[in-house]
Amino acid sequence: MFNPQDYFFMRQALLEAEKARFISDPNPRVGCVIVKNHQVIGAGFTQAAGSHHAEVMAIHDAKQRGHDTTGATAYVTLEPCCHFGKTPPCVDALVAAGIAKVLVGATDPNPFVMGQGIEKLKSHNLEVRVGLLAKESIALNPGFMKRMQTGMPWVRLKIASSQDGITALSNGQSQWITGEQARLDGHRWRAQASVLLTGIGTVLADDPQLNVRGLAVTRQPLKAIIDSKLEISPAAKILATGNAIIFCATHDTEKMSRLFAVHPHLKIIPVPNASGKVDLAAALKYLADQFHANEVHVESGFKLNGSLLREGCVDEILHYQAPILLGPGIGLANLNTIHALTDASRWQVLDRVNLASDQRTRLVRLIPD
Amino acid sequence: MFNPQDYFFMRQALLEAEKARFISDPNPRVGCVIVKNHQVIGAGFTQAAGSHHAEVMAIHDAKQRGHDTTGATAYVTLEPCCHFGKTPPCVDALVAAGIAKVLVGATDPNPFVMGQGIEKLKSHNLEVRVGLLAKESIALNPGFMKRMQTGMPWVRLKIASSQDGITALSNGQSQWITGEQARLDGHRWRAQASVLLTGIGTVLADDPQLNVRGLAVTRQPLKAIIDSKLEISPAAKILATGNAIIFCATHDTEKMSRLFAVHPHLKIIPVPNASGKVDLAAALKYLADQFHANEVHVESGFKLNGSLLREGCVDEILHYQAPILLGPGIGLANLNTIHALTDASRWQVLDRVNLASDQRTRLVRLIPD
Repeated sequence: MFNPQDYFFMRQALLEAEKARFISDPNPRVGCVIVKNHQVIGAGFTQAAGSHHAEVMAIHDAKQRGHDTTGATAYVTLEPCCHFGKTPPCVDALVAAGIAKVLVGATDPNPFVMGQGIEKLKSHNLEVRVGLLAKESIALNPGFMKRMQTGMPWVRLKIASSQDGITALSNGQSQWITGEQARLDGHRWRAQASVLLTGIGTVLADDPQLNVRGLAVTRQPLKAIIDSKLEISPAAKILATGNAIIFCATHDTEKMSRLFAVHPHLKIIPVPNASGKVDLAAALKYLADQFHANEVHVESGFKLNGSLLREGCVDEILHYQAPILLGPGIGLANLNTIHALTDASRWQVLDRVNLASDQRTRLVRLIPD
Repeated sequence: MFNPQDYFFMRQALLEAEKARFISDPNPRVGCVIVKNHQVIGAGFTQAAGSHHAEVMAIHDAKQRGHDTTGATAYVTLEPCCHFGKTPPCVDALVAAGIAKVLVGATDPNPFVMGQGIEKLKSHNLEVRVGLLAKESIALNPGFMKRMQTGMPWVRLKIASSQDGITALSNGQSQWITGEQARLDGHRWRAQASVLLTGIGTVLADDPQLNVRGLAVTRQPLKAIIDSKLEISPAAKILATGNAIIFCATHDTEKMSRLFAVHPHLKIIPVPNASGKVDLAAALKYLADQFHANEVHVESGFKLNGSLLREGCVDEILHYQAPILLGPGIGLANLNTIHALTDASRWQVLDRVNLASDQRTRLVRLIPD
């Protein structure tokens, strides 16, 4: 259905999309190349929210380089949009540029698009073919895809442990179990997240900044804290930038006022469940609804890791392991006791990557074939 | 010092040595190729104990194939022996075959050899060069090398766990955490061991046969059980073949008699330490001294794993991990509590291998550079 040249150019479009990894949130990571006479005459990727999408960037690029896009073919990793959002529809830009043929990676699950972009292109007599390296395009955008399809963000749980599965010593010491390369890799995953989420236990124990460091980034993710009883101190480092949201299970206005006095832009959202804890699914839904959160990156401890896993909120685990043995200490997550191995929580290995002497294993919920 | 052709032929000798992996114990895994006019005219590897060594096999092979070995070059992965053991010295065989030049991988740390083989070859005017791919030759024989140098066997601890470091559920269930490929790989490691060691806890809980299955092998390793109080039943499957040794810390003759009544060839060796447990180092030394044990393969549980690790008896860990989460249960090993991450037990990663969705990580004691 697609020829080798199609794959070649779509791979180039995917490389463009890759450049949007830390930039385009909450928009999907999309890349586009414009091809004429078997040559790439323009390339582009989705810019920061509110700025240009990949197709427009690629057309601009071609024009800037002195090319005429009339009759050219566009390779786009995701279906072009056909609605007015913060920018005009890409479909219109492709038509206006005289593009003759569009090869699309994945269809856009956004209910405002969902095949309509393709239909609109066809109605303007453009030749359109869909499904070229669709899996690769989807893999770049797990959060956007999930949010469009379910209204919930993609939750990625980062855990660092020893070879014997210990994340902290009995006395709480946990810095640092893994080495420099693993930590830098961790910051790359933070950088691509919409939201960095942690629990009050981690805030009280480690007072983390929970920001992206060691990478040149143009945006810092929103910070979110699960803090049922609003125990956080206004002096907590995580609140320093003001770009934070606290989910609690209390309406204690006195505690809220103390926090607002220091952090006027802080958001405090009570989402109690029946047992007086934070309703985690509701908190995640809030992040998707109010902040268009695609990927929520969790760096927390035993308790919140366990709650998220037990409540089925985790889509992916990033497990960093160092080749050390720590003995008695705190494990990966507070899970329920099971009584048969057949009741184990089973995951699919996405990849395993060596980072100096450490290793990162990436697991996703096992979806039966 | 060595030219590309030397490396090429020594690699062939190493491939021969590899064929001795499950066979030559307690002799080292050695390979030899005889080269004349840039051609391999004979190849061989060490046979079962008491039978021919690699050099003799390679010379025989050359002669059988109608070649004259006079003036040829021998590539041997380990220094040829110069003493009468169960077979005559290989040095004599090389001299008698008219070999002109010998390229040696590693020197033999056996105190009966240790450079004397090389000297004897030189005294017969053979040209000898040593150190070609020595590391690879040594890596094939960690147990033989350690035993010759220290009088102790190489101890390899096999552990299978979930991603969260659980080896058994709280109710003891542990079969099977890893999948078919990992289990077969485990049997390959069993097959190359001199001794398979376990603890009474595992015998009582799982009643294992602890033999090599799923592979065509000509020898089964000796079985050893650490059983301080001699709690093992004469009906235990591990004793069924009779080829077993029990290390205990009691002299209870009544219990011994009950076992001997059913298993007349069983060996029961009391090696108590000051705390009334089995002196593990003494047991391992006994295996090296009395059974020429090179590699001791341990498949046991939390307690014995911990004792062996705490007492510094473990050289290598074979850690199989399945991508599942098990929650509360039994960990890798009963280790001491530490109070600072700097006190962690640090290991060097030899390799990480994927086995279907499981992974095997091979760790050795970290030796500072």
